[in-house]
Amino acid sequence: MIKYQQIAIEIEKYIEDHALQQGDKLPVLETLMTQFQVSKSTITKSLDMLEKKGVVFQVRGSGIFVRRHKRRGYISLLSNQGFKKDLEDFNITSKVIELEVRKPTQEAAYNLNIELDADVYYVKRVRYINGQTLCLEESFYNKSIITYLNNEIVSESIFHYIREGLGIKVGFSDKYLHVDKLKEEEAKYLGLKKGEPGLYDETIFHLTNGQPFDFSKITYNYEQSQFFIQANSHFL
Amino acid sequence: MIKYQQIAIEIEKYIEDHALQQGDKLPVLETLMTQFQVSKSTITKSLDMLEKKGVVFQVRGSGIFVRRHKRRGYISLLSNQGFKKDLEDFNITSKVIELEVRKPTQEAAYNLNIELDADVYYVKRVRYINGQTLCLEESFYNKSIITYLNNEIVSESIFHYIREGLGIKVGFSDKYLHVDKLKEEEAKYLGLKKGEPGLYDETIFHLTNGQPFDFSKITYNYEQSQFFIQANSHFL
Repeated sequence: MIKYQQIAIEIEKYIEDHALQQGDKLPVLETLMTQFQVSKSTITKSLDMLEKKGVVFQVRGSGIFVRRHKRRGYISLLSNQGFKKDLEDFNITSKVIELEVRKPTQEAAYNLNIELDADVYYVKRVRYINGQTLCLEESFYNKSIITYLNNEIVSESIFHYIREGLGIKVGFSDKYLHVDKLKEEEAKYLGLKKGEPGLYDETIFHLTNGQPFDFSKITYNYEQSQFFIQANSHFL
Repeated sequence: MIKYQQIAIEIEKYIEDHALQQGDKLPVLETLMTQFQVSKSTITKSLDMLEKKGVVFQVRGSGIFVRRHKRRGYISLLSNQGFKKDLEDFNITSKVIELEVRKPTQEAAYNLNIELDADVYYVKRVRYINGQTLCLEESFYNKSIITYLNNEIVSESIFHYIREGLGIKVGFSDKYLHVDKLKEEEAKYLGLKKGEPGLYDETIFHLTNGQPFDFSKITYNYEQSQFFIQANSHFL
């Protein structure tokens, strides 16, 4: 991990440990430089990163302030790290329905930008929150990038394994959402009735070089899921 | 507008005009500096802004590449600019149901961080896409910040007026989403049936100094709406 990322983690931890609230002011740059024994450019990078992440906001000529969304138990739609972290107060478990190497569907091949005869790992899981169904998840991993998966791995956090086990750097993601009525099979897995509401999430995860490696389709149980997005002001 | 923002707009326009696709490489920094007649630090700022916005991605040691989501007609959940821009190929209209100065609900007062006896502009609209209902929208504006609204303004883009008419800089926003079954009144406005799916969006918009000025509750017609989010790789 690069220095400024470490410092960013430490500043975020400081905010959490001191239970700082939205609008609370952080120490000035010079104080942070002394406290963390780093250069101005490192501290600036750390703060930029925390701003992008929605942890602080910077007011020109006025300082750096804590940014905190106020509702707990919401899943971040901006995190690329799986939702275990958002829901760390909750017990998240998974039941693996299917795990196999196969050829991609046309949709998966298109979204992963691979040929129809390439190999993918196909993973189908139901995820639970405190014993209630949270979502049904179908994922297609480009096997030439995600070279190995097994049942034990996919029962836990796959992204944790991808980062730590395979040493792969996760880059940007494109997420598409819509709401519809649940089909019979989806409803069955979620313990709901056909025709009840479902939130459908399709996400394509890319490596830092822009290559897609994971196309995931998630159907959320509307009774157990809520979401947040912290948007920044850099949009024209 | 600051120089680097102008350049960012021009680069984005260049990408659109040339119909560049995801993965296409942009010219190197030096070429961009010459082309736009600006310094390296300005170009770097422009590119950082476009990366945050999901228009490009930078690969260390390799260059700057175009990033493009592939689906049209999706509403960005990261834009603070209203969704007219995402849907510019479509005809977006509004019907104003209510517009008045009143006291905030408890919920609105909490989210706007104001007292219960403060004044707010309350706006209730139905928005249409190509003549179909897109969403029902209820907004509470802190009247000490958004000092004036009228029927003509709220029939059009309120955010355009806030930025251009009032000269207010929109900062960050916190958005909360969940899915539920529509209540009778909501269904009626949307032309749907009670109990059909609805996407509920609550957003608090802040000034650049962190003060909330708009608390909006939007209920989307699931048949007419779909959403995208371009997330970056800067999350730990």
